[in-house]
Amino acid sequence: MKKLSLLLLLCPVLVNAQYRDDSVTIKKISDEILRNGKAYDLLYQLTKQVGGRLAGSPQFAKAISWGKDAMEKNGADQVFLQQCMVPHWSRGGADKAVIISVDGKKTSRNLDVLALGNSLGSGTVSAEVLAVADFDELERRKDEVKGKIVYYNAGFNPANVSPFKSYGETGIYRRSGPSRAARYGALGVMIRSLTESTANNPHTGAMQYNDSFPKIPAIAVGPRDADEVWELSKKAHFTMSMTTNGHFLPDTVGYNVVAELRGTEFPDQYITVGGHLDSWDVNEGAHDDGTGVVHTIEIMRALKAIGYRPKHTIRFVLFANEENGLRGGIKYAEEAKAKNEKHLFALESDAGGFTPRGFSLGVSAAQLAKFRSWLPLLSPYGTASFTEDGGGADVGPLQRQLGAAVGELNPDQQRYFDVHHARSDVFENVNKRELLLGAVNMAALIYLVDKYGL
Amino acid sequence: MKKLSLLLLLCPVLVNAQYRDDSVTIKKISDEILRNGKAYDLLYQLTKQVGGRLAGSPQFAKAISWGKDAMEKNGADQVFLQQCMVPHWSRGGADKAVIISVDGKKTSRNLDVLALGNSLGSGTVSAEVLAVADFDELERRKDEVKGKIVYYNAGFNPANVSPFKSYGETGIYRRSGPSRAARYGALGVMIRSLTESTANNPHTGAMQYNDSFPKIPAIAVGPRDADEVWELSKKAHFTMSMTTNGHFLPDTVGYNVVAELRGTEFPDQYITVGGHLDSWDVNEGAHDDGTGVVHTIEIMRALKAIGYRPKHTIRFVLFANEENGLRGGIKYAEEAKAKNEKHLFALESDAGGFTPRGFSLGVSAAQLAKFRSWLPLLSPYGTASFTEDGGGADVGPLQRQLGAAVGELNPDQQRYFDVHHARSDVFENVNKRELLLGAVNMAALIYLVDKYGL
Repeated sequence: MKKLSLLLLLCPVLVNAQYRDDSVTIKKISDEILRNGKAYDLLYQLTKQVGGRLAGSPQFAKAISWGKDAMEKNGADQVFLQQCMVPHWSRGGADKAVIISVDGKKTSRNLDVLALGNSLGSGTVSAEVLAVADFDELERRKDEVKGKIVYYNAGFNPANVSPFKSYGETGIYRRSGPSRAARYGALGVMIRSLTESTANNPHTGAMQYNDSFPKIPAIAVGPRDADEVWELSKKAHFTMSMTTNGHFLPDTVGYNVVAELRGTEFPDQYITVGGHLDSWDVNEGAHDDGTGVVHTIEIMRALKAIGYRPKHTIRFVLFANEENGLRGGIKYAEEAKAKNEKHLFALESDAGGFTPRGFSLGVSAAQLAKFRSWLPLLSPYGTASFTEDGGGADVGPLQRQLGAAVGELNPDQQRYFDVHHARSDVFENVNKRELLLGAVNMAALIYLVDKYGL
Repeated sequence: MKKLSLLLLLCPVLVNAQYRDDSVTIKKISDEILRNGKAYDLLYQLTKQVGGRLAGSPQFAKAISWGKDAMEKNGADQVFLQQCMVPHWSRGGADKAVIISVDGKKTSRNLDVLALGNSLGSGTVSAEVLAVADFDELERRKDEVKGKIVYYNAGFNPANVSPFKSYGETGIYRRSGPSRAARYGALGVMIRSLTESTANNPHTGAMQYNDSFPKIPAIAVGPRDADEVWELSKKAHFTMSMTTNGHFLPDTVGYNVVAELRGTEFPDQYITVGGHLDSWDVNEGAHDDGTGVVHTIEIMRALKAIGYRPKHTIRFVLFANEENGLRGGIKYAEEAKAKNEKHLFALESDAGGFTPRGFSLGVSAAQLAKFRSWLPLLSPYGTASFTEDGGGADVGPLQRQLGAAVGELNPDQQRYFDVHHARSDVFENVNKRELLLGAVNMAALIYLVDKYGL
């Protein structure tokens, strides 16, 4: 088997002969999506008519109704809702940060900031700023922290070709930076936004308090303002005020929206495709993850439109709560486990609606070889590689709990962190053809997994 | 040799061992560009301080001075200007088109249009519109053409994954559509803009008259207006007026701007890297081809910055006139031929400043195998393939006249025709990291060609 896979890898011509019917079907899928795709119009509805939809918010409830309706109208054999409790964090108003004095001299310089998701605040905190490059500097200067607002200047490493690599390296400042400073007596924390954008939009995103330390307010500052703050910190002492009002309301009822195309041969074996329905509150959740939502619906619509009848049952899932809790993904895996379902493969789109370049997978070596043997079938549509970087967040519980093979669409990454969790994540920053091509590659992969198994 | 190449292709691990030093040098090039790249700031200067720069225009003259200065400041061993006469077409004012009556009833519906480059006009032409899908329909209905304005609805085929393929298929309507209609007595021509953009911007670009037929005015209409015109044509007779004032002024003196890094071993053998300095008049020429211009300067800057001393002389060329004459590229090849220069390879960037995906080449089979053997070195930076689709327009004459191997950067194509020749081709639509990564991949390729020859 391994030897055969290797041979397949090395001989694309042979593969093409073997999979001739498949290339015809995949072209049919592609034509259907590129000619008649509804994903862009659906995204318009979700971003403009529903808007930002943080778990627990009224817009989130609206998104669930919208998703159920869209699934029903686009070919589902059945649609059901899977109830789960979701957190309900509220920003509580406009966030604000102002440099109020420099070297003892009063000033008033507004910074463009957003409170971090899950952070708590109840008004204004004012204090001198201790600006540090990173955690190492924080540790070296821990005796200076008490009573100050700590600013972390840690940013993306521009030399990384992959911005996701940079996000992986720097994300810890958003998640853990507040408590690490609170430990030494900080009154508040500001981080450099996790982006390399040339614009000044601040980028929010989830943080998590360590319950052992005071829960201090935490904000992210736009990258151009961050540059200014960092420069200022080198030559002056300065104080700032930060005003935030983040708080938690009681958990509320949310739902995964699940549609099915029933399998003809193995109706009790499942392939899952999904994206997450929730988004941050400060934007339209276009690339994060409106595009994943409409990819999911589009793939179902297209398979139905070309008359494809899957062997396995394909589930199309709009997950309830990825951003600040993962409750939807956890619920989906729990239900699957409780019902002893067999899950072949679960694929997510949660890295933006940009031109597809491939897929990252969390699969066995034999499965990886099988995926790679399909490259010649997918490369005409943009898939250039299968990497071993694991699946999306929402399908992670299914992998951990049931051992399912998982994957995630890997679109071009360069623009993702321009919009990720920022007010710029709006419909206008999604390109129709890039969006549709993502659905093409995902649908083709789902077709191959359904036909050949794993 | 061929066998060896095949082996190299199949064994990336072997290749990595062989080229270990190269991967270190390429990482150094990449780090230099991604950390310290000047391309984005240079593009800002070219687009915002020089602006649109059609050959012959005052802005074009300004662009030449700017280019020479930028080359000198960014590490050239020498910079020289290569004189060539360039055409001087002028739009002559704002273009206009209005639907003035529908089924005999007066109306006034402005369409968003641009005169095609090189087209002639001297005021307003009003006539009934004959809308045809394509040349086939024009031929079938040739008896109806006389005295009318012909509208061609031929658009991009959305099922093509490659928009450049669509451009190749449909570009003939822009280039030859006017004369093909004039042949049958048309008074004017309007084409659907060559784009799949969801915006309504019209897209200009070069056309060419057939001297055997009257030189009638010709415009392109924005795609949303095109949809409306096409729908209207199915249910009503309508007349429109089109106002254009395109005309030619006498040819003027232009220049290729040429910088060199002198070769240490083979100073009389040349490798060329270039982009074109001219652009259309209706935008900032950001992706077409400001990004090619700043790629060119950036590659030179980066090679110099890391202390790389090339074996061959590397020429960095800002070509004078690609858009409506190719005079710069022709001149460059003529001079090379007159001086009996040996040209190894000429690489252009003229497909936009989007994330690089590979290169298209016009090379021999043995050379192609050599390029492909370098894939493992380039793939970490985005290059996924070398295709055989030929080099850029400006390096074409060098290939035809001297048999030089040629190539062109192949960036992601999906957004290119959103901006190509339209008013949306502005600095704001270029992403800094995507731009820099193009320079990284090109510089790495130039380094490999310089080191190993072809």
